[in-house]
Amino acid sequence: MQWVKVLGGVVGAAAVLGLGIIVGHFAIPKGADSPAPSASASQDLDMKILETLMEQLDANRIRENLRELSKEPHLATSPRDEALVQLLLQRWQDPESGLDSAGTTEYEVLLSFPNGEQPNRVDVVNSTGAILFSCRHSEENVTGEQGDPNVVPPYAAYAPPGTPQGPLVYANQGSEEDFKELQRKEVKLQDSIALTRYGGVGRGAKAVNAAKYGVAGVLVYTDPKDINDGKSLPNETFPHSWCLPPSGVERGSYFEYFGDPLTPYLPARPYSFRLNSDNASGFPPIPIQPIGFEDAQVLLCQVNVSVHNRLELRNSSNVLGIIRGAVEPDRYVLYGNHRDSWVHGAVDPSTGTAVLLELSRVLGTLLKKGTWRPRRSIVFASWGAEEFGLIGSTEFTEEFFSKLQERAVAYINVDISVFANATLRVQGTPPIQSVVFSAAKQISAPGSSGLSIYDNWIRYYNRSSPVYGLVPSLGTLGAGSDYAPFIHFLGISSMDIAYTYDRSKTSARIYPTYHTAFDTFDYVDKFLDPGFSSHQAVARTAGNVLLRLSDSLFLPLNVSDYSETLRSFLQAAENLSVLLEQHNISLGPLVTAVEKFEGAATSFNQRIATLQEGTPNPLQVRMINDQLMLLERTFLSSQAFPEERYYSHVLWAPRTGSVATFPGLSNAYSQAENTGHDRPTAWDEVQRQLSIVVAALEGAAATLRPVADL
Amino acid sequence: MQWVKVLGGVVGAAAVLGLGIIVGHFAIPKGADSPAPSASASQDLDMKILETLMEQLDANRIRENLRELSKEPHLATSPRDEALVQLLLQRWQDPESGLDSAGTTEYEVLLSFPNGEQPNRVDVVNSTGAILFSCRHSEENVTGEQGDPNVVPPYAAYAPPGTPQGPLVYANQGSEEDFKELQRKEVKLQDSIALTRYGGVGRGAKAVNAAKYGVAGVLVYTDPKDINDGKSLPNETFPHSWCLPPSGVERGSYFEYFGDPLTPYLPARPYSFRLNSDNASGFPPIPIQPIGFEDAQVLLCQVNVSVHNRLELRNSSNVLGIIRGAVEPDRYVLYGNHRDSWVHGAVDPSTGTAVLLELSRVLGTLLKKGTWRPRRSIVFASWGAEEFGLIGSTEFTEEFFSKLQERAVAYINVDISVFANATLRVQGTPPIQSVVFSAAKQISAPGSSGLSIYDNWIRYYNRSSPVYGLVPSLGTLGAGSDYAPFIHFLGISSMDIAYTYDRSKTSARIYPTYHTAFDTFDYVDKFLDPGFSSHQAVARTAGNVLLRLSDSLFLPLNVSDYSETLRSFLQAAENLSVLLEQHNISLGPLVTAVEKFEGAATSFNQRIATLQEGTPNPLQVRMINDQLMLLERTFLSSQAFPEERYYSHVLWAPRTGSVATFPGLSNAYSQAENTGHDRPTAWDEVQRQLSIVVAALEGAAATLRPVADL
Repeated sequence: MQWVKVLGGVVGAAAVLGLGIIVGHFAIPKGADSPAPSASASQDLDMKILETLMEQLDANRIRENLRELSKEPHLATSPRDEALVQLLLQRWQDPESGLDSAGTTEYEVLLSFPNGEQPNRVDVVNSTGAILFSCRHSEENVTGEQGDPNVVPPYAAYAPPGTPQGPLVYANQGSEEDFKELQRKEVKLQDSIALTRYGGVGRGAKAVNAAKYGVAGVLVYTDPKDINDGKSLPNETFPHSWCLPPSGVERGSYFEYFGDPLTPYLPARPYSFRLNSDNASGFPPIPIQPIGFEDAQVLLCQVNVSVHNRLELRNSSNVLGIIRGAVEPDRYVLYGNHRDSWVHGAVDPSTGTAVLLELSRVLGTLLKKGTWRPRRSIVFASWGAEEFGLIGSTEFTEEFFSKLQERAVAYINVDISVFANATLRVQGTPPIQSVVFSAAKQISAPGSSGLSIYDNWIRYYNRSSPVYGLVPSLGTLGAGSDYAPFIHFLGISSMDIAYTYDRSKTSARIYPTYHTAFDTFDYVDKFLDPGFSSHQAVARTAGNVLLRLSDSLFLPLNVSDYSETLRSFLQAAENLSVLLEQHNISLGPLVTAVEKFEGAATSFNQRIATLQEGTPNPLQVRMINDQLMLLERTFLSSQAFPEERYYSHVLWAPRTGSVATFPGLSNAYSQAENTGHDRPTAWDEVQRQLSIVVAALEGAAATLRPVADL
Repeated sequence: MQWVKVLGGVVGAAAVLGLGIIVGHFAIPKGADSPAPSASASQDLDMKILETLMEQLDANRIRENLRELSKEPHLATSPRDEALVQLLLQRWQDPESGLDSAGTTEYEVLLSFPNGEQPNRVDVVNSTGAILFSCRHSEENVTGEQGDPNVVPPYAAYAPPGTPQGPLVYANQGSEEDFKELQRKEVKLQDSIALTRYGGVGRGAKAVNAAKYGVAGVLVYTDPKDINDGKSLPNETFPHSWCLPPSGVERGSYFEYFGDPLTPYLPARPYSFRLNSDNASGFPPIPIQPIGFEDAQVLLCQVNVSVHNRLELRNSSNVLGIIRGAVEPDRYVLYGNHRDSWVHGAVDPSTGTAVLLELSRVLGTLLKKGTWRPRRSIVFASWGAEEFGLIGSTEFTEEFFSKLQERAVAYINVDISVFANATLRVQGTPPIQSVVFSAAKQISAPGSSGLSIYDNWIRYYNRSSPVYGLVPSLGTLGAGSDYAPFIHFLGISSMDIAYTYDRSKTSARIYPTYHTAFDTFDYVDKFLDPGFSSHQAVARTAGNVLLRLSDSLFLPLNVSDYSETLRSFLQAAENLSVLLEQHNISLGPLVTAVEKFEGAATSFNQRIATLQEGTPNPLQVRMINDQLMLLERTFLSSQAFPEERYYSHVLWAPRTGSVATFPGLSNAYSQAENTGHDRPTAWDEVQRQLSIVVAALEGAAATLRPVADL
């Protein structure tokens, strides 16, 4: 997981459950033998198959998967990463539990590594340059795994090499506001080394912001307050608790965009034009290096930072496996996770891959036995080089752009599957809410509460829906994992599923050993999910959603659930109307467009209901499903954010403006509010962004209206 | 028709045929009564219906349509243009011969008109400014129609107002090369008035090129050599022949792009952001005015040009009519033409609209009688404001972008349907070749030859195909009419169909009265197509193609026919390999991609053949048809030509480079060849364009491969 928005992790509270856990919450009528696979056009979701799937997803097998996956560090393109490619291939080609076919695609991509001969250094020096103190070059070997020769030393991937030296200035989180504040206080920033802590803004942004003030180099440390609920002593931290040891250092990519840096919009295949790395954009402008809090607390005065990172072209593999659809093989339900980690990566990403392998095993077994074949095709994916910037998944979407745009029904991402044992957490676009709810209602939550996953979820994350009343609240999709190119670049309905923690019990920014050498199997086994029941719960939820999407006659996507989002964005926009009206910008067309969407979605759902009562012919069903599948695409606009690489979704592109409305509108409004007096064209941009949103909503409504209406 | 690439017109040679002409070339088995409309998923093309359509398309009705349509001038948005909107609506809503539904969409668009109070002038003046001679302000009233008060005076739409004065310089066609040549000859261009003739380069380009050399104003005249095969005397010209009278002036749009100038990429609806017209681009940089050859021959010395054109926001309507598909209502076959003319517009565009109305009448009658309903939906369109820059059709594609991208099977354009009586002429993308050939083989050519349209066609335009041997040659689609936004912006397989002339008999650049006040009903009735048999031939061809596209179980598009284009582009590229290799650019990946496409297309056609032998289920047919429909989309790239408004098709975007290969590659190569020594990044652009083509071809091949292959 590259960047985390909703957090996970609670210790101890989860009851350890038996491995052969009884699934007690199914509302599925038990029946006789599973039916033979049928290729009839009316083939629909078979509740008995769904039940079988739920029963056979095995927590212990997930645990064994995780042990194997996290046994050794498997940094992208490392020998162990390549060995895992073979492991995945072997599993997916297994004659008894494999898929119809599996293969790899290799991309030659630009990664960034520390220099093996010349380690990065952070030294405190005196005025003559003599070294008074040196930061650690690696984490302390606490449990054995940290001493593995394949542990990559802490570094900031894509940070440029350089050896800046200067007085140390504490710059909080390294946000624009933080540096402005220092400037206001007349702290000298020119040629300084800024010490920042993780959080608040993206990794790369700390260097970008610092460089604007003449800062020469940046350090980033993990603050115990942000990650350990304040705990910082060795005996309070791993292996004594889930907390991060003092020597732990969060690695990460400092690349601003995603995808291979040298081949934006083109697959990083041998034939593709590559930018010269001097011309690539999105790298930090100045050297930057992460350190642990053990070192951070002793730093003072003059600091010398030596960064010797090197850019290297490497071959990174995706592994893809497919189960051919019986009825609509040209409709794809995609399910994926990345394979590469920073170190052993037990939590990130192996908790996800362990679930992926168990899910593909159970489905593969049903397939090979002849018990089942899905209505639509299922594509399993193990992405390479995610940690460097979602590279494998992005290159995949670039290479298969047309095919995916034509045929992809949805993308399910399960990266870190378990942050902690408290509750389900799902991020996704509104149309996936209903299918996730259906699944979550059908599965028991881990622990002894007796609640369904749904009823448990609603206790932790909920909102009041004008339509449904109190429901669990879905998070939105940023760019934290491989779903980003699917939703932002391709407009494919996407989701990310995990189990996470109770926010009342910890304020950790993310699970404490994130991207460190302490993220190991024992860490998961002892602290995150003893008994692996949360893993099993995620496997069941994701598997349930996957089967519903692949097998239901009508796609279980509810387009009407977009109406709530549009309403809330519209209401937020209406708070801007005073200033908008002063600049002759009317929200009237937006109101009309939202109403048209709502009306079209409601009528559309009624048409589905009517069809479901009768016996619709295969093409009537297909037409409806095409509308359901393609709705998300209608929200893309090539004109909205031409300067934002890949982002084109007018609802979910990054929002920097403070008003929670359509991002293009919010950002342009905030710009105009700040600069509009000097630059009247800033208000033109507000009007332009508003028009783009209106045109997209009108297009979305048009897609939902009866197909022979023009 | 805005800009003409393939020319039409031959006089006298066509035999006048009886109106109830017998169609003798059908290979259709005659049968009993037409079957009742069926909504079975296997509904296929009914040859009896096709035969009925061919028989009922009536030359005399087309003639009467044309008389009505061209009775009065109907410049875009004029009262008569609006009256024709009502005429179309009335026809398409007729209870006995109308469509399922019809309606209008209005766009508020920026047009350009002469100033009613202050006519544009071209005067020869002496050194004191006294007027020695004035050009005509309007054409001579030769047949009565030219005296109609609604005739718009000759002008260059979108030319800026201004009153430049200076010595006259003859600048041939006003191409870049022409001005360079004058400069070489040390002719003083600064502050001069350039006299240019139509042809060679686009209208607006003459002003753009002139302005670069300091020219103050431009005149454009129609040379009798280019348009009248040299004839220039009044008694040699209309109404005595089809030739242009001396006073005739070609009007036209001088806008460089297409679509509404103020709302690029957005529909020109009330809610859309509009550029300030000062910020709009694509208008001629200096005043320019068209004149007749009568005036051009007496011009000399000092000339004063007064242009008083005004930009005006006007409401322009499209009229749309739809026949709902019985089986796949969500698949659209579009058939359209523009409605607006410069003056009476008998040829341009009313010959096309007269055919459109006859075709919709016959199909509407079959529909209303309950004899027939197409498998797919048919959308008829009458576009507004085409003459100003394909505005109505472009705004339509902007407004319904998503829906059309998802569902449009093909676009058939019939603008000027008859240039002359010699032969069919079709421009289109390769997949439409086979359906056009099928239609053309089935219909008798006008005249007494006894040949089919196909066999007649091959006598005039042919090529040797490596696959088929000697076949009629299809032209390519530029941006001459409303097909442009469909093919270039949306990637919809498109075609333009017309009857045209024998090039051995005339070298006229286009039919002589093009865009003048002499383009009248009598002109068509007496000279272009007496008896209207060529109109009928076009109606039959276009109707035949339309019915095959709307009714065939498998879409009659042959994707394999793209292979010949790719091969020929590849061969042309291989001629560049010496210089490419010097810059380390290999064509290997392009060779591989072309081979992959060929292989995928061949296998795909084999799969169709196999399916056709059996009894494919409805979803198997739909899958194949989706691949056929969407192939054209895969050739679009948002990254290929970011500076070329709307153009995104990597095969058919405008090519300025001299090598007949992929336009992006050709253009970049030509740039690099000229500037590469000074600017090594020019070769990077060649490599980038090559990668874009390879990625598009790989994507196209992927779309054609078996759908469950990844």
